[in-house]
Amino acid sequence: MGHFKISEEDVFFILKDQLNYGSICELSPFKDFDEDTLDMLVREGIKFAEKELDPLFEIGEKWGVLFENGEVRCPPEFKTAFQIFGENGWISAVRDPRYGGQGFPHMMRIIANDFMYGAAQAFNMAPSLTGGAADLIANFGSEELKERFVRKMFSGEWAGTMALTEPNAGSNLAALRSTAIREGDHFRIRGSKIFISWGEHDLTENIVHLLLARIEGAPEGVKGISLFVVPKHRVNADGSIGDFNDVVCTAVEKKMGLHASPTCALNFGENDDCIGYLVGQENKGLAHMFRLMNGARINAGVSGMTLASTAYQNALAYTKERVQGSDIARRASGYVPIIEHPDVRRMLLWMKAAVEGMRAMIYAGAFWYDLSHACSDEEERAHYQALVDFTTPIIKAYCSDMGFRVCETAMQCLGGYGYCAEYPVEQYLRDVKIMSLYEGTNGIQSLDLMGRKMQLDDGAPYRAYMRELSGFCAKHIHHPTLGAAVRRLAAVVKRMAEVTAGMSERRTSDPLQWASYTYPALMCYGDVTVTWRLLDMAVLAQERIDQEKGSDFYLGKVKQATFFEGVTLPETFARLDTCLRREREVVEMPEGAF
Amino acid sequence: MGHFKISEEDVFFILKDQLNYGSICELSPFKDFDEDTLDMLVREGIKFAEKELDPLFEIGEKWGVLFENGEVRCPPEFKTAFQIFGENGWISAVRDPRYGGQGFPHMMRIIANDFMYGAAQAFNMAPSLTGGAADLIANFGSEELKERFVRKMFSGEWAGTMALTEPNAGSNLAALRSTAIREGDHFRIRGSKIFISWGEHDLTENIVHLLLARIEGAPEGVKGISLFVVPKHRVNADGSIGDFNDVVCTAVEKKMGLHASPTCALNFGENDDCIGYLVGQENKGLAHMFRLMNGARINAGVSGMTLASTAYQNALAYTKERVQGSDIARRASGYVPIIEHPDVRRMLLWMKAAVEGMRAMIYAGAFWYDLSHACSDEEERAHYQALVDFTTPIIKAYCSDMGFRVCETAMQCLGGYGYCAEYPVEQYLRDVKIMSLYEGTNGIQSLDLMGRKMQLDDGAPYRAYMRELSGFCAKHIHHPTLGAAVRRLAAVVKRMAEVTAGMSERRTSDPLQWASYTYPALMCYGDVTVTWRLLDMAVLAQERIDQEKGSDFYLGKVKQATFFEGVTLPETFARLDTCLRREREVVEMPEGAF
Repeated sequence: MGHFKISEEDVFFILKDQLNYGSICELSPFKDFDEDTLDMLVREGIKFAEKELDPLFEIGEKWGVLFENGEVRCPPEFKTAFQIFGENGWISAVRDPRYGGQGFPHMMRIIANDFMYGAAQAFNMAPSLTGGAADLIANFGSEELKERFVRKMFSGEWAGTMALTEPNAGSNLAALRSTAIREGDHFRIRGSKIFISWGEHDLTENIVHLLLARIEGAPEGVKGISLFVVPKHRVNADGSIGDFNDVVCTAVEKKMGLHASPTCALNFGENDDCIGYLVGQENKGLAHMFRLMNGARINAGVSGMTLASTAYQNALAYTKERVQGSDIARRASGYVPIIEHPDVRRMLLWMKAAVEGMRAMIYAGAFWYDLSHACSDEEERAHYQALVDFTTPIIKAYCSDMGFRVCETAMQCLGGYGYCAEYPVEQYLRDVKIMSLYEGTNGIQSLDLMGRKMQLDDGAPYRAYMRELSGFCAKHIHHPTLGAAVRRLAAVVKRMAEVTAGMSERRTSDPLQWASYTYPALMCYGDVTVTWRLLDMAVLAQERIDQEKGSDFYLGKVKQATFFEGVTLPETFARLDTCLRREREVVEMPEGAF
Repeated sequence: MGHFKISEEDVFFILKDQLNYGSICELSPFKDFDEDTLDMLVREGIKFAEKELDPLFEIGEKWGVLFENGEVRCPPEFKTAFQIFGENGWISAVRDPRYGGQGFPHMMRIIANDFMYGAAQAFNMAPSLTGGAADLIANFGSEELKERFVRKMFSGEWAGTMALTEPNAGSNLAALRSTAIREGDHFRIRGSKIFISWGEHDLTENIVHLLLARIEGAPEGVKGISLFVVPKHRVNADGSIGDFNDVVCTAVEKKMGLHASPTCALNFGENDDCIGYLVGQENKGLAHMFRLMNGARINAGVSGMTLASTAYQNALAYTKERVQGSDIARRASGYVPIIEHPDVRRMLLWMKAAVEGMRAMIYAGAFWYDLSHACSDEEERAHYQALVDFTTPIIKAYCSDMGFRVCETAMQCLGGYGYCAEYPVEQYLRDVKIMSLYEGTNGIQSLDLMGRKMQLDDGAPYRAYMRELSGFCAKHIHHPTLGAAVRRLAAVVKRMAEVTAGMSERRTSDPLQWASYTYPALMCYGDVTVTWRLLDMAVLAQERIDQEKGSDFYLGKVKQATFFEGVTLPETFARLDTCLRREREVVEMPEGAF
């Protein structure tokens, strides 16, 4: 117990000092809130995660998933926690007040997820998916569907899922084969889905699947996919649970991690007795689903970052306690805590920087999301929407791959003990790995960033990102203490722009060569964004140091930024060049030569 | 079943074309062998791994370790396999013929381990430790000890362990507290050991522990440690099993991977009834043990490389079969195997290069080891010993960390399926992680390389390494097709020498700052060594292409080398610079600022 640790001070430094997040309350949709209320939600979120969710980390791992006769049984503590989670308003916090939501700014959901996922990743997927699924119905569903489903999902009475993947339609949804046949006001559904997180469980009396399928006669490919609500149990007119809706769990995956989260294979309409309701427009299902998928991609990034954060905090605590070996500079006699060993300290500082940089990137993205919806000025809204579009694949891929790297490093700090289940780090490492794989593999994120997002609105997302980033560099390029680091960042940004232009040309002239280097390019964007956010924090911290002098907290912000910049950007610069290599080994390698 | 895959052609290309390993048979200790015999051993090793060990990978994972009342029960198939392993001479292959060994060149053990670990890591640790432990007795033990123990261990009748680690003496053996009190021809042993791989099991009727302890009155620190043989059961004068020797297994670790390998906590002499026999000189135990530890470090590198190799082969097979998505350049209509997607192909080519480069580095190291013992010329022997000294920490740390990275990349090729236990990749990823942690963490390897090994014999190891490496660069710097890559390698080598000189100065002037950057420096040495071995293979392959033209096999060797060089060395160059940074964030970071 007591594995989840987070520094409230670090969180608020980003939210208040860096983002001035309270300013969101000046915008009309949020004028009923003030900064104190937001602060309170942050503090309550941390407390809730510590008290209610942290114990589930171990309980869930021990219990795993019990699957028998098509039914999944979860630990009783999960059922209780899901209920309290709903009752305390954590599913509905940012949702539409017309259906039981509380209307908080959207960013508060992402911030709360930082704590909830950090404490119990496997569990928190259940309420998180529920909120996202209900939000889809609230946005695109008929009034009748909204009345019937949304309120009960926001309150945590029923759970929800996203049911996309099929055995032959993983990354490629165009290959989807589930079908829907119209029958009056509803559809008859048939199909098999796999990899459905929390697709079956006993936390709630009903599970509401948001499912993609083809209506009879629909066009081939992605243009013939529609979105449906398919509950596990039908719902009577009075809102009570009706007949079983022929949704059967046929298997639960055995996985490397997330052992408490049931990853299900589901059969819909095996006995031809499954009905569903169209959500939104016919054949526009994929576009509707993207609202949820974009949220899920951000969440994957949040999970990568926050599992890394928790792993770091655990490694930090260990290195302060574990006494082993002598001080290399003989500053002390006898044996010392291993945090005194420079190689251990190097790992700690790198982890701290990576985690805080990623957290700052994610919180900024969340803030921009709200601005993209709530700003009164249309141009401003478009600017922030463009920023969100651009950073989503970076947040997803970079935070998942770097999150894994941080958990690996945390394990290294514990030595052999890190490999043992007696400590939680090995579980973080196993749990976090999925983030690079689901919600679109990181390779797919890199194609999205360097392809679709570069073209979208004639390059608006890229321009919006570069405007913010260049603005920061220009403003601080002569900073008395951090100027050198900012100038190195500016040099990398310049090279990144050139490489991006070169790659954009290649995309049409030589798509195979282009696609061989989108992933390293995305990782460069991640390095740069994280360094930018770290240096931005460092500038603020340096101001405090200049005023008040000598607080370790602010000194840490400066040190982590210059260290991360110093050991990262030189490699980023080098990697950028490789993205435009002329040699075509990847393309030319014959299959028989592997 | 059938997860273990290896390309015999790739293996022989390194052994024959690159190393001309048959030439070892010209040296006097090996004059009874010829290249055909060595080849046969390689082929038999692969067959044995495929037939006898490959099934153990899954069986062991399913069975795990059953621990009850101080006894560990293993799958019956493990017991049978251990017996056959011994009978077929795989423990004794390279060992002293005077005690039942076959006297093969030492490198054959490392090559065989490539196959045996690649097929069943958890299992192969048992016979591998047995051979190493017996070899210690054969080298340093009295004739009586040799007669009593060595033959039965080489034949696989009894097993062996290395018992070093204690709860407060992990990385720091100076803190060791186990004691030995002299009683006539033997010693009474007391102490607790942890993390003892295969410390207790039912594969053999006896287990022979090679244990470090302090003789009463011995000096403090590492200079007071002696080496003992401590069997689980005493051995009667006629060689039969005698009384229980008071060695009790008190716990078995729950680990992230290697579930079939019992990692034991052992109590020696709980009832004051445990006796042991001194091996070698009093107080020289650590020096004696280093023979085994160096072997274990190489083995950790072998495991890192070969688990990566097997993971790569599994990913390769998957990407050829899995059909998903359309060809990005529209070279084919419909959906294509994912090996056609450039980002997947990039991952495959990178993995292939990393694996073959590491394998070539390890095999070269193994070859050098034999030369260091078998060359008739003393200077030559010293040169090769220096090479072995220098490359051991590189092989251990680089191959374990890169092996982990390759397994991670292999998982990425499988998408969500990679995370599922239905495929073996997630097990490789879990199993391989220990290699970075045990036999001295990778941080400790980096201190060994950049510290002890740079100073040893007035820098002889470093000079020997640089002589070989510079020789290669000088020879091929004007190569018609590979010259550009060789010149870039030479430039990195030049910078590496400068950085090494700078760091050596720092080591005394500013040890804290120095030790903050030994790990990235070691990784640079790894990148460079692997690139060198890859380019060396490419030069040979290019000759064949120029002669015969167009075999995919040789083309693959060239492509993997130029690709690896092209995407790796620019980052290596950049990282080298960071190792001499002036900024001292790691050192100056206050503990309270983390």
